[in-house]
Amino acid sequence: MTTKQFDKIALIGIGLIGSSLARVIRQKGLAGTVAIATRSSETLERAHDLGLGDSYTTSSAEAVRDADLVIVSVPVGSSEKVAREISGELKEGAIVTDVGSTKESVVEQMKPYIPEHAHFIPGHPIAGTEHSGPDAGFATLFEGRWCILTPLPNADEEALAKLTTFWESCGSMVDRMDPHRHDLVLAIVSHLPQIIAYNIVGTADDLETVTESEVIKYSASGFRDFTRLAASDPTMWRDVCLHNRDAILEMLARFSEDLSSLQRAIRWGDGDKLFDLFSHTRHIRKSIIEAGQDVEAPDFGRHPEYTPAEKRGG
Amino acid sequence: MTTKQFDKIALIGIGLIGSSLARVIRQKGLAGTVAIATRSSETLERAHDLGLGDSYTTSSAEAVRDADLVIVSVPVGSSEKVAREISGELKEGAIVTDVGSTKESVVEQMKPYIPEHAHFIPGHPIAGTEHSGPDAGFATLFEGRWCILTPLPNADEEALAKLTTFWESCGSMVDRMDPHRHDLVLAIVSHLPQIIAYNIVGTADDLETVTESEVIKYSASGFRDFTRLAASDPTMWRDVCLHNRDAILEMLARFSEDLSSLQRAIRWGDGDKLFDLFSHTRHIRKSIIEAGQDVEAPDFGRHPEYTPAEKRGG
Repeated sequence: MTTKQFDKIALIGIGLIGSSLARVIRQKGLAGTVAIATRSSETLERAHDLGLGDSYTTSSAEAVRDADLVIVSVPVGSSEKVAREISGELKEGAIVTDVGSTKESVVEQMKPYIPEHAHFIPGHPIAGTEHSGPDAGFATLFEGRWCILTPLPNADEEALAKLTTFWESCGSMVDRMDPHRHDLVLAIVSHLPQIIAYNIVGTADDLETVTESEVIKYSASGFRDFTRLAASDPTMWRDVCLHNRDAILEMLARFSEDLSSLQRAIRWGDGDKLFDLFSHTRHIRKSIIEAGQDVEAPDFGRHPEYTPAEKRGG
Repeated sequence: MTTKQFDKIALIGIGLIGSSLARVIRQKGLAGTVAIATRSSETLERAHDLGLGDSYTTSSAEAVRDADLVIVSVPVGSSEKVAREISGELKEGAIVTDVGSTKESVVEQMKPYIPEHAHFIPGHPIAGTEHSGPDAGFATLFEGRWCILTPLPNADEEALAKLTTFWESCGSMVDRMDPHRHDLVLAIVSHLPQIIAYNIVGTADDLETVTESEVIKYSASGFRDFTRLAASDPTMWRDVCLHNRDAILEMLARFSEDLSSLQRAIRWGDGDKLFDLFSHTRHIRKSIIEAGQDVEAPDFGRHPEYTPAEKRGG
């Protein structure tokens, strides 16, 4: 169904996203060859063992030579460094994109180093799991998920069309947005939930009145959903916080304001207010399921097929 | 493997928990007959259509007559009302238990009405989904999950042993705790996460700068995990907030204090502090998976098998 779209694709960074791309590119035959670059020789070796590409190097510059499409999948704080490294080696007409969770900062960091003869089109696939590294990727990661492209003014339409087709071939649905709006939207749907999850797990971990074993044993009551998010790559999320600061602080302020109001309702026993708030949020869940962005099955996959005997009968 | 443990079990309330109990009792043959009572005639009719029990009534008093085990599965704010109703009809030696998410309040509400000749043993199975009502239940809901019993001083050991065996037959692992400690532990592992989830979904819903359709489309980036919790039964959660107020306010205060510190680190660009916090929380996730309280599969069940054609290619 799909055919070769690029002679050579260079993947800079081969973590969860990079290695998922490598797998889907291979599976769908989207590239003649795939060059893989990552800073860490250990990670590179693992990528090689997994057979994720056709060539392997710790030099981004070497990887992008002759590449028609370059996809940078590194923590957003490393964007400038990568852009500097590849700057002099990009071929005429090469498309350079990224997968970072913040876009204004990536544009600021990379744009100055991408030569006029290449096409820089920032992007962000809204897909991921709590796992990281080259082993964590899988070919269907982008299936049914949105990918947001944030082209700069006067972006080359042909390059944009090619990149759009590429993401669609990976299974994604593609949207366009300006970088500023992207960062605002993602602050609420992604960055704030992530920060709140880290925070609540941290609060639980610090409690001197409730033991860690109690927190773990009874986590099925709600807490475990937060721990999944809080197991995500710390480097990636540190960089997101540092590089989308203003939008995140704005969302945190709103969240705290709302939480104070909810807290007050609890303190004063305002049952009607609590009921209203708790009812109000149900329709959003319904819309998310209808939009295919989550499954309705309750707790699907959460019931262990086997519980070790020694853990029974406490 | 399992055999009849009680001649008659009365289920007061037939929502997610009550109807799951009905199903597992039937499946494992734990009772001679099951009497079902619920206040709403509509819900009662649905329970009847689903064939969940052997007799159906809107009168709790009628249901508990001759019952050896009475399980009250109603929002915790209705506990006193139910206790009053059944008080005069409990037979000699009957075990009365409940499944409420708060325990000190349930003891206060019910204890005065349970006659000396019956055995009142409060309980709380740590199991559930975001769905509610008699259709939402399933027989394996308690499989591999903890059930906390909070017996009062001088509880009858024989009755306690029988109730423990019952929950184990339902697939649970049973713990004992005093009611006060239960409420403190659940405040952090369950009530706080739930309140935070409601709050964050509410904050997103109120934003005038980001549209609801954006929130929904890009929810796979973290937000959707909160919406699952925030789709839970509002009556149940209103009652939990009203009936475990002190412990919840204590946890909310700690959470807010930690969040202010995190917010400060973001504002001042303290990357080391963020990295430390974000790394620190990973080990808890690992322990939860090792304890069988969640599965390791990334995003398991989250990849839709089918995405409607009209939603593709945006």
